[in-house]
This record gives sequence, structure tokens and C-alpha cells, in this order.
Amino acid sequence: MAHSSEPEHKSPPVPINPAVKRQRSDWTVERYVEGVLRGDRVALARAITLVESQRAVDRAEANAMLTQLLPHTGASFRLGITGVPGVGKSTFIEYFGLQLIERGKRVAVLAVDPTSRVSHGSILGDKTRMGALVQQPEAFVRPSPAGDTLGGIANASRETLLLCEAAGFDFIIVETVGVGQSETAVYDMVDCFLLLLLPGAGDELQGIKRGIVELADLLAVNKADGERLTAARQAQQDYQQALHLFPPKPNGWVPEVLTCSATTGEGVDKILVTIEKFHTSLLENGFFNEQRRQQQRQWLRALLRSELWRSFHAEPSVRRLRDQLEREVVEGRIVPQAAVAQLLDAFLNR
Amino acid sequence: MAHSSEPEHKSPPVPINPAVKRQRSDWTVERYVEGVLRGDRVALARAITLVESQRAVDRAEANAMLTQLLPHTGASFRLGITGVPGVGKSTFIEYFGLQLIERGKRVAVLAVDPTSRVSHGSILGDKTRMGALVQQPEAFVRPSPAGDTLGGIANASRETLLLCEAAGFDFIIVETVGVGQSETAVYDMVDCFLLLLLPGAGDELQGIKRGIVELADLLAVNKADGERLTAARQAQQDYQQALHLFPPKPNGWVPEVLTCSATTGEGVDKILVTIEKFHTSLLENGFFNEQRRQQQRQWLRALLRSELWRSFHAEPSVRRLRDQLEREVVEGRIVPQAAVAQLLDAFLNR
Repeated sequence: MAHSSEPEHKSPPVPINPAVKRQRSDWTVERYVEGVLRGDRVALARAITLVESQRAVDRAEANAMLTQLLPHTGASFRLGITGVPGVGKSTFIEYFGLQLIERGKRVAVLAVDPTSRVSHGSILGDKTRMGALVQQPEAFVRPSPAGDTLGGIANASRETLLLCEAAGFDFIIVETVGVGQSETAVYDMVDCFLLLLLPGAGDELQGIKRGIVELADLLAVNKADGERLTAARQAQQDYQQALHLFPPKPNGWVPEVLTCSATTGEGVDKILVTIEKFHTSLLENGFFNEQRRQQQRQWLRALLRSELWRSFHAEPSVRRLRDQLEREVVEGRIVPQAAVAQLLDAFLNR
Repeated sequence: MAHSSEPEHKSPPVPINPAVKRQRSDWTVERYVEGVLRGDRVALARAITLVESQRAVDRAEANAMLTQLLPHTGASFRLGITGVPGVGKSTFIEYFGLQLIERGKRVAVLAVDPTSRVSHGSILGDKTRMGALVQQPEAFVRPSPAGDTLGGIANASRETLLLCEAAGFDFIIVETVGVGQSETAVYDMVDCFLLLLLPGAGDELQGIKRGIVELADLLAVNKADGERLTAARQAQQDYQQALHLFPPKPNGWVPEVLTCSATTGEGVDKILVTIEKFHTSLLENGFFNEQRRQQQRQWLRALLRSELWRSFHAEPSVRRLRDQLEREVVEGRIVPQAAVAQLLDAFLNR
């Protein structure tokens, strides 16, 4: 029916995947590279589509392109932002981004959201959300890539981040929502991690994944305006006190808790100044560059592990065995070591 | 010089690895199985040595033995205990273990300590530490196995735990010290996780790894005696308050903070009663068995991942490439995806 190779039918054309439709001959690696470096938005958008593609031929081209662009990356400041739905992330990022542009920055906003395919774009999916920011020539807003695994999504986002840097954006905001392991993935790709909170500390932490508070370099209680001001200040105090119970962060920075209102703008400049202070402090103690090197190493290892795991499970002889062996292990009929020995044998002697 | 295959020298005999010296013909799988099931200590100790061995031939024998013993495992309660050095873990375990024996339990104490090889047995290495417990016929104390990786050590400990269950021990204590990822490894093999604390909350959390407090089902401030009683009660309050900031645990249990003194014994019975309450609660809501099934599944996957990773790095063609590629990634000369593509190609087309 929907077979597109039957030209004799007059049925409306089947929608074609843009990655397939793209004339490959038109867009050589050189054209991508040249366009991205010139800061051309069309080239940047196409380059991002390329790194998001899972096709082997696109992957090879993406690797070639990225390798050429790598010397032009790394000069931005990378800020991760998270918080529960309803905390006001979009409003905050819009106000914050406009402030950055006023200070002469070029701002890219990316998202990592493993749920966006299911929920049809829960963050950044609707570009009208950041209307005023999107219209700025100094801003670039890109929704979360679709993908089956968080690893794949996070990888595409890391590569997109590099592309934005090569295109001249010098402040990258990576947004995520507290689902799955996405905060950890974002934490692993940014220089500074900001957690947005709602007034009303105790209740609200219920919605935040375990361990996220510990990742934050900076916490900001948003919606500190009007009648919520008192609750916001109370939350600020509670969090500040709770932070004392955590061990010091490896980067030597003592996380601060601030308050702000993304609608009135109150307190947002203080956050900007604190982030600058953070940046200076980490440049001075050498942790800034050390952290980036560590992140590169981690990225490589994580990618290697996941790709190795993927090719293991793609092997037919493994697929035939694994479910039955897992059932036997869970039911206590064989020990895991025995199951592992059988599975590895099937993989390595395929 | 120390080459043992030169019999013409009169130098003192080179110490021989006990696993090598053991007469394999004397100890068949059947003899291990029969001995362990009878509760024979010599058989149990030898069976543990077998599961700790890394030799392929021992591994095959160990798998066969464990598979036969599996139907006789699972009936114990498995308690994990952690806390910083100096918190009094040995004293606590000794007193606690004797209490359990008084209540008719047979108690095995195991350790997971990835540092023990370096520090020559920082926990349980010195059996005289738990002198009174070790002398009980109802107790069995086994130090941490030596090993290169935490994964290997944890795996041997899991298998030792099963052996102890098959030998009739119905309360297994797995001790660890807050180093590396060992608490998580222990958490993944026990039913209940107890964190021992020192009086003086804020300062002390400095020594505890991030995230450990969140794993605990039960916290006990030890050394709550004499002039430390006030500080202990204060610490108890502080922790209880801090716990309110954490989201509820998946097992539906609300962690409690107790105080105790392992030297006077004060409060230890309360801990015992609370653990029984915990056990009942998890049996009732079905989480007890569900957690064990999940742990089996996790154990299998973790072991599979680590063994796959190990065989990948054991491959000569991978070893030739990996360091150079990692350096190129860290220095920003190539993207991780490109390095991964090269490495996987080398492995899969070996």
C-alpha cells in the first residue's frame, strides 16, 4: 500500500524522512563545516540533523564533520538547568537568555529530554514558549532530539553543543527535566549545574530525583514574588541548611541557594553574577579544564560501553539465549556466572 | 632466582598458592555440595576459596557446585552494615551477632572491602577483632576476598553469601567500609541496609560518601554512652530531620534513626526489633521478594557488562588502539564516536 516505489498510483505522496530526502551530493562535509563556522543557521540546523541521524552513512559523515570542527569548539560556558515541571524553566531561560544577550553573549538553548517523544515535546518542543528569545539573532533554540535511549539522546546533544560552539555561540544552556537519568547526563556535559526550585522546600523535594540536589552547583528558588516571597525565603533557608549536611563538592565550590522571579526578573542578575563568580573560581583552581577533560574521557567510555552492549545484544546467537538464561537466574535455577559464561561464549565464538 | 622449576637449588621452598596446592581429585563437586549442606566448616571454607578463585577450571567447578546448592539458598535475612572507620562496626557486629545467636540464629559475617588487599585487611582481616563471636559454633566470620576489582570482590561475596545460606546460616551480615562503590555493591546484595554513625552529625557526614545516607533503611548513632550521649541524641535529631528532605524509599519503608552503644549494649535490642519490623513490613507489601528478584537481574546484568568489558580490553587489537584514541579524544582531536567506531571495528573483526 504505502510502498513509495510504486509510481503508477496516484495516491498522495508518502511523507519522506527529511534525512532521506536531503540531497546528499548538495551537502558535502566541507559545506557543513564552512557553513557552521560562518554561523549560518541553515547549515547549523542541517548539521544538527546529521549528528542526530542513526544511519551508518550519516554517522561517518558526522564524524568527519565534527573532527574538522573540533578545533573551533570549547570556548563557550556550558550551563545545565533542571527542575520539576511547573518550576518555570522556560520563563527563566527566556529572561536569563535575554539578559545574557544584553551583555553581549550569543546564546544557544538545547534540551535533553528522554520523554519528549512520548509526551510530544514536553520541553522546548513548542518553540512559541520562548518567543522573545527565539526571535533574537543572537539566540538559537533547539528541542531535544528524538531517540530510543537516553545515551543516544545525550550523545546527540553533546555533539549539538559542539556544533553550536563552532557556530560562535558562547553561552550554551542545556535544559532537562527531572526524569530518568537525564540530569546526570546533562551534569556530565556542562560546566555548571543550576537546579530551579519551587517555594515550599520539603514537599517539593518529593518530585526531585534522589541525588540531584547533590549535583547542583547553584540552587535558585523561583517564583519568589508576591505572596510566595515568604515561602521562597523559607525554602532558601531550608535548602541552605540541608546543603551543610552534604560533603564538599570535588570542584571546591560551595553551592549557594538564591531566590528569583523569572516573571519580574528580580534576582536573576544575582544568579548571573554568581555563575560568573563560579566560572572564575574554577578557572583559578584549575578544575574548569580538568572537569572538561574528565567529561571527554567519561563520554568516550560511556559511548564505548553502550555501543559494545548494543552490538552484543544485536548478535543473533546472544538473542536466542539471553531471555531464557535471565529467567533461570531470576528463578534461582542457575548462578549469574554460569549464564554469563554461556552468553559470552555465544558472542565471542559466533 | 625465585623460579620454582629449578629443583637443584637448596633454597627454601617458594610459597605455593593454596588454590594450586589443593588436590583437585580429593574435592569433587559432590563432596563440596554434600559438605556444605551438612554445615561442615571445612567444606564451607574450601567452597568459598573455590568461588574466590579466578582460574577457569575452578570457575567451571564453582558454577556446577553453586547450581546444585541454589535450591538450598535464600532462606536467610541479609543485613548490610556500613559506616566510616572508627564508628565501631566490629564491636557492634560482635555484640549484635551474639544477641542474634541468643535468639536462636546462626550468623555469618562477610566483608566487602576493595581496599583490604592494600591495607592488609582493614575489616575482618584480623579475626581476633571479633573474638567472642568467632568462638561461637553458631557463627562464621569470613574476611573480604582479595581481588583486583570491586566487581570481582562483590561477586565472590554474593556467592559466599549463597554458600553460607546453603550451610544453614540464617542471618547473614555483610560489612563494608565507605570506600569506592562498595556500599552500593553491598546494598545490591542485602535485604536491609544499616548505616552506623558517630555522634556529631554535620562533621561526620563529611566522611561518608555522597548518596549513602539515601541507601540506608536504618541509621544508628553508635557510641551513645557516657558523655557522648547528648551529642548522640542531637545527631539522631539532625539526621531524622535531614531524612525528611529525601523522597520516600521505593520499598515503602520510612527509615528510622536510632541510638546505641555497642560497648554497653544499650539500644542494640531496639535495632534488632526495628529490623524485624522492617522484615515483616517488606514481606507484607511484597517488596522483599521483588527486591531479591531485582537483585538477581541486576547481578546478572552487571556481571555480563563487566565480563564483556573485560574481554573487550583483553583483545590485543583493542589494546593497541585504545590509549592513543583516548588521548586524541581528551585532547579534542577526534570525537568519541569516531574513536568508538574504530575500537569496535577492531574488536568485532578480530
